[in-house]
Amino acid sequence: MIGRLNHVAIAVPDLTAAADQYRTALGATVGEPQDEPDHGVTVIFIELPNTKIELLYPLGEGSPIQGFLDKNPAGGIHHVCYEVDDIIAARDHLKSTGARVLGDGEPKIGAHGKPVLFLHPKDFNGCLVELEQV
Amino acid sequence: MIGRLNHVAIAVPDLTAAADQYRTALGATVGEPQDEPDHGVTVIFIELPNTKIELLYPLGEGSPIQGFLDKNPAGGIHHVCYEVDDIIAARDHLKSTGARVLGDGEPKIGAHGKPVLFLHPKDFNGCLVELEQV
Repeated sequence: MIGRLNHVAIAVPDLTAAADQYRTALGATVGEPQDEPDHGVTVIFIELPNTKIELLYPLGEGSPIQGFLDKNPAGGIHHVCYEVDDIIAARDHLKSTGARVLGDGEPKIGAHGKPVLFLHPKDFNGCLVELEQV
Repeated sequence: MIGRLNHVAIAVPDLTAAADQYRTALGATVGEPQDEPDHGVTVIFIELPNTKIELLYPLGEGSPIQGFLDKNPAGGIHHVCYEVDDIIAARDHLKSTGARVLGDGEPKIGAHGKPVLFLHPKDFNGCLVELEQV
């Protein structure tokens, strides 16, 4: 069912410093900051040859990233995103196995303009899993 | 400098259950458990079309994964591994930017039989980074 690893998201306490570090210390291809007010985040994508790293920084009040940074002030790996062909079929199959979908269980339009869902980290070895329909 | 994302490693409290879940709930291609006594882990690789997920479980006394699971009993994302062409050149460049290499700073032979190094997570937004020479 799951396909490619679309991205790994890393919450960072200083977006400019993190982008500079990926660019100069790790020598990666780093994009420009993009505000995603609907998601409460500013993101920078690091383009690797086979996938992406998504640097996440809180935007506005009630950002879902702020609580994570409060608990992890240095930052940390926030989630992984797997691609699926049919997000409704994937959701219904996962629910049938007992996995919990976060929120109201309906896909939202994610930061890439595609339908996404998040699965409860307690059901996946402490790992927050995003599914994105591609 | 960094190339492909070689893998994302997830520490899990129950390797069989985690493998079953990736196989049946997420519908992924799941390998067999491999004991890596030199690294104090048993690993199972999940093969995705563009990269791998590495499920990690402690093996033997003093496993580097045990402390992580003690702090995160449900499991969690443990590290990301980026590929590099020349691990010595990568290390020396990273050290020149102030990044700290874990251990004695010399590459070890990693779980895939290739030279690896780990970078201090405090220098990389709370994210443990492995470099693997490919």
